[in-house]
Amino acid sequence: KKTYRIAVLPGDGIGPEIMEEAVKVLSLVEKREGVTFEFKYGRIGGIAIDTDGTPLPEETIAISKEADAVMLGAVGGPKWDQNPGHLRPETGLLGIRKALGLFANIRPATMHSSMVEASSLKPEVVSDVDLIVVRELTGGIYFGEKKRYDGPNGEVAEDQCIYHENEIERIVRVGFDVARKRQKRLVSVDKANVLESSRLWRKVTERVAADYPDVELSHMLVDACAMQLVRAPKQFDVIVTENMFGDILSDQAAMLTGSIGMLASASLAEGSFGLYEPVHGSAPDIAGQGIANPLATILSAAMMLRLSFGMDEAAEAVERAVWSVLEAGYRTGDIAADRSKAIGTKEMGRLVCEAL
Amino acid sequence: KKTYRIAVLPGDGIGPEIMEEAVKVLSLVEKREGVTFEFKYGRIGGIAIDTDGTPLPEETIAISKEADAVMLGAVGGPKWDQNPGHLRPETGLLGIRKALGLFANIRPATMHSSMVEASSLKPEVVSDVDLIVVRELTGGIYFGEKKRYDGPNGEVAEDQCIYHENEIERIVRVGFDVARKRQKRLVSVDKANVLESSRLWRKVTERVAADYPDVELSHMLVDACAMQLVRAPKQFDVIVTENMFGDILSDQAAMLTGSIGMLASASLAEGSFGLYEPVHGSAPDIAGQGIANPLATILSAAMMLRLSFGMDEAAEAVERAVWSVLEAGYRTGDIAADRSKAIGTKEMGRLVCEAL
Ligand SMILES: CC(C)[C@H](C(=O)O)[C@@H](O)C(=O)O
Ligand SMILES: CC(C)[C@H](C(=O)O)[C@@H](O)C(=O)O
Repeated sequence: KKTYRIAVLPGDGIGPEIMEEAVKVLSLVEKREGVTFEFKYGRIGGIAIDTDGTPLPEETIAISKEADAVMLGAVGGPKWDQNPGHLRPETGLLGIRKALGLFANIRPATMHSSMVEASSLKPEVVSDVDLIVVRELTGGIYFGEKKRYDGPNGEVAEDQCIYHENEIERIVRVGFDVARKRQKRLVSVDKANVLESSRLWRKVTERVAADYPDVELSHMLVDACAMQLVRAPKQFDVIVTENMFGDILSDQAAMLTGSIGMLASASLAEGSFGLYEPVHGSAPDIAGQGIANPLATILSAAMMLRLSFGMDEAAEAVERAVWSVLEAGYRTGDIAADRSKAIGTKEMGRLVCEAL
Repeated sequence: KKTYRIAVLPGDGIGPEIMEEAVKVLSLVEKREGVTFEFKYGRIGGIAIDTDGTPLPEETIAISKEADAVMLGAVGGPKWDQNPGHLRPETGLLGIRKALGLFANIRPATMHSSMVEASSLKPEVVSDVDLIVVRELTGGIYFGEKKRYDGPNGEVAEDQCIYHENEIERIVRVGFDVARKRQKRLVSVDKANVLESSRLWRKVTERVAADYPDVELSHMLVDACAMQLVRAPKQFDVIVTENMFGDILSDQAAMLTGSIGMLASASLAEGSFGLYEPVHGSAPDIAGQGIANPLATILSAAMMLRLSFGMDEAAEAVERAVWSVLEAGYRTGDIAADRSKAIGTKEMGRLVCEAL
């Protein structure tokens, strides 16, 4: 019997509730597929600050490194918002990305037909939107040197945005690889008319493109891309971009669908190792009420099955189960047209398990 | 008779055509208001590269500095796209911003009722959208030090994002001042959970807020703002943000309206001096055909009348003239539901003059 080790980091807010349902679904997959999942739990974010005095305890890194993949819930909440940088939940998230070498963030924004009404865009503009943002996750201005000092005109603050050729090359290759398995259209987004890092980005992308003659590459400036995502999102298949632009554009793309409670993401290292998490946050305002939508976390588990374990069929089965529950009309509060008919977190998890 | 000196920089692509109509409108305002406008023409962008060997000739800077305000058409085109940095049209634009100290970019995104259909968003989401993005324009990663060198893993590129306290303070004050004259709600956008420059930005904003107790200030992360602009743009009154985020968010906000051929912008220095330009680009694909929409340039002229010359009534008269022409059903190709009924650049200019 094949065994896969999964590090489970529920985190803060609604994290624990939604993770519980994803684990239930995975336990069912275990039986169905005749494999063994070994779950090991760890702390990250606010809960880790409270318990261990740091948002990313060594133990959590160790558990994650020993695992074949990591499932993350969400981190953050008002309790820790005023903390200094090293004691903030997000610092744990940035830290685990760097510690595990998770350089490739894969963020699909897919409009499922039963969800079209939830979007703020016109149905004809968003129906059938099916795009993926591939975001560089361990470089750029996020991890460059930071400075703060006194100058003649008051305080001065600096952030360095730095990219090395090999960092650009490996993420752009992920972009091409993802595009190759889809519609073979890659848009590389940069700000090459202003930034030196973008000019290097574009140069490397052009060079790598020679290895992918079957994929159509185009370049788009980040401001133009923000416009085009609003105007005509269907034009996109795969977008590849650097860390900061990817943060903004992937969130914008996610919101086009109107249902970020449904969107999953993967953060991959070289090889098959990855961390999987919902796109939405920890939603502290509804934590503990049993009303959070577990589907993004369940769909993240499906991504894990596919990308880290190569269990394509099981992944599809989970995804089909989710869509069938939605098609039957079940909704949690965040995506319900009529909130009074909304079902809870556990009920949604149960229905997906049943459908599976 | 009061005299105002206006530097006119038509630039590339459709720039000259649309500028011609704006100048006609201004000539009418001259008579109507009993003032004198002294127009002086200058070159910028691609045309200046071709004629003077630089995208921003000294003469253009001189003409602009001697003027009370500058009207700019648009710069850029495929002809100069492959040029090295110092010979690119955008470099002229960045250069004039710096040379004239234009630190405050004011970008309204207003949904006029007759235009609701042009938006890709649902009418109920965008009708009555009326927001202004105040973007810092001469600092941040745009003007920080750039480096390119060879490292152990290939080439390395760096961009420095730097902000001084006084730069943040003056743009944030513009944000508060603009908000004070409107709904008194200011959203300051940053990435304070990651960037040092954003943490300083937030600190300075909090300090300045004490001088504006009548304005409601809130902070939003740039990724959340990109989401909220898609989900519920009506929540915004005034957004103030740094250069790079402002580039992205102001373009996204502009596209929400679906008619960027209608949007004007101002770039202001300390005092009343400013540069006024349409939000749209030089549209080289339709240049010289007489079909470009001159309304954004005409509305930019109205902004100039209001912000640089204090001619509020004349500004309103021009704006009313534009809306009345639109309400009468006239459209250029870019905003026409039925392109075959679209009118040309000159015809649109003539109708606005007539309405005025
Ligand atoms: C919490 C924050 C540091 C993080 C980021 O900016 O990367 C988040 O916005 C994300 O996209 O995962
Ligand atoms: C042309 C380019 C350098 C410029 C910018 O990024 O500022 C443009 O996008 C703008 O917004 O005016």
